Amino acid sequence: MIARCRRLFEPALREAVSVLHPWSARMAGFTLGWADADGRPYEGNAGKSVRPAIALLCAEAAGADPGSAVPAAVAVELVHAFSLVHDDIIDHDEQRRHRPALWKVYGTGPALLAGDALLALAVAQLARSGEAMTYLSSALVELVQGQTADMAFEGRPWRGPGAVTADEYTEMTLGKTGGLLGAAAATGVILGGRADLAARMWQMGRELGVAFQLADDILGIWGDPTVTGKPADSDLRRGKKTYPVLAALATDSVAARELATLLSTGATDDRSVRRAARLVEEAGGRAEAETLADRYLSSALDTMNACLPHATDLRTLCGSLIDRIH
Amino acid sequence: MIARCRRLFEPALREAVSVLHPWSARMAGFTLGWADADGRPYEGNAGKSVRPAIALLCAEAAGADPGSAVPAAVAVELVHAFSLVHDDIIDHDEQRRHRPALWKVYGTGPALLAGDALLALAVAQLARSGEAMTYLSSALVELVQGQTADMAFEGRPWRGPGAVTADEYTEMTLGKTGGLLGAAAATGVILGGRADLAARMWQMGRELGVAFQLADDILGIWGDPTVTGKPADSDLRRGKKTYPVLAALATDSVAARELATLLSTGATDDRSVRRAARLVEEAGGRAEAETLADRYLSSALDTMNACLPHATDLRTLCGSLIDRIH
Repeated sequence: MIARCRRLFEPALREAVSVLHPWSARMAGFTLGWADADGRPYEGNAGKSVRPAIALLCAEAAGADPGSAVPAAVAVELVHAFSLVHDDIIDHDEQRRHRPALWKVYGTGPALLAGDALLALAVAQLARSGEAMTYLSSALVELVQGQTADMAFEGRPWRGPGAVTADEYTEMTLGKTGGLLGAAAATGVILGGRADLAARMWQMGRELGVAFQLADDILGIWGDPTVTGKPADSDLRRGKKTYPVLAALATDSVAARELATLLSTGATDDRSVRRAARLVEEAGGRAEAETLADRYLSSALDTMNACLPHATDLRTLCGSLIDRIH
Repeated sequence: MIARCRRLFEPALREAVSVLHPWSARMAGFTLGWADADGRPYEGNAGKSVRPAIALLCAEAAGADPGSAVPAAVAVELVHAFSLVHDDIIDHDEQRRHRPALWKVYGTGPALLAGDALLALAVAQLARSGEAMTYLSSALVELVQGQTADMAFEGRPWRGPGAVTADEYTEMTLGKTGGLLGAAAATGVILGGRADLAARMWQMGRELGVAFQLADDILGIWGDPTVTGKPADSDLRRGKKTYPVLAALATDSVAARELATLLSTGATDDRSVRRAARLVEEAGGRAEAETLADRYLSSALDTMNACLPHATDLRTLCGSLIDRIH
């Protein structure tokens, strides 16, 4: 299904990128996964293409040719790529999808500018479609707001007064991850001729985004590095505030207190990080994240069933995003 | 005139920025010039507001209330602010308008993200106006392409095979500086109800942009630091390829050869930099830049006179951009 979607939008994605300066085009090819660092063709590192697939499958489920949503698919994939490139610079993450991050290969300045180029191209895809553009632009604002909130969480304490609450975290993910999934779904139905469904599909996508982010948080602690493409326990190691940890810390348990103490030391050795992961699980943080992910997914699927009753492929895709954690 | 324009668009600009996360809003206030680093109100550092003034005066010259172009004015000012924030990160420039650059005050990651936020807000201003959005989005693509070309120039030789030609440089400035001035003029007339003039005003703005950039290049070498807000001779000191230097090097003169040798040593001491500036002038680089700036300005003014014969304020504004060098 993803492969079918990819065949539909990838030619347009490559064409969009081809207008760039050769230097940016090479960086774009590397970050979009079809070229190595020297610009030679490269297979099998294109990411999951979740966002463009949602756009195309939404158009199809709305009764249109999925090809009608190609500009939306290309736009959301470009925004996603832009956000990963800038995120890796901001977080000093050196690896992305089993390869070095873009800034590690080409330098911070060129990578920053390549990210800007991807964003500019994304906007160009939907510039003529005012209705779709309002959703894409809302997603951009929400994405950046969510990333900023996420960054601001870093400076706050793990526990006690001023600690980040689970609700604040969920709100942040509605923007950081939900906005773009919402735009994928909304622009997909708009280009598929069902603008009347856009507002509900936006909401559906945002909820899906929360479920997706929580699944990522779980994989960021307990996922297999050979699958995730990131170093093991990387979120815990760099002290990132994620839902399972915040939910664990919010409990009044012995494990939560020990976890808070351990995290406050900032220890990043393997033993401490593994201990922290066990304490998050003992305090119920993992289970709570799973439950909440399932709840957001079901709410999204309810909306999808009501709006797009024949969306079999879309439902399968959405379910698969969360299945990874079960 | 600028003050009148500023009164028109600044409330909308402040309102646009007010939706941001408090952290981004503070960074935006600093970079847009109405707050100090701690978020306290601050006067007199708002930049020249050239782009928003062009949008408003174009709408007015098209026979509309200039207020009709406020969303365009806000959008182009936000894009401009975004580009300065990212440029300073890319170029490691530590000063901007007599104050530290945003990244020096808040760190690279937060500044990068604040730049992204400004761009996202810019797009949101015009999302509903498909016609205006196509010009804004073209300007974004051109801007980033121009910045990339400019960056790629850095790795090329000063003289001989592979050297950057004056034509390549002019082409780069059409994108880097021209695109956004073109968008200001085109979106101004569109929101002012004269979409039929948009394509010609886009072209007019792009030409104006080249003239403006050449004037900036001249000031970057011979300008007074107390006026430019940048360290003296900063372009020459960091070996930036600008029009006067490239034009000087392209001549077959003794001064050009000495200049090429001097630049190749990469010497950044005051004596070498002053000597380089004198050699650029001796080889005729400054005069050629002035002549070309005047030629682009006149072509822009011709288009303006043909399209908007009553644009007195707009003509005065455009002239003043170049007068700085005479």
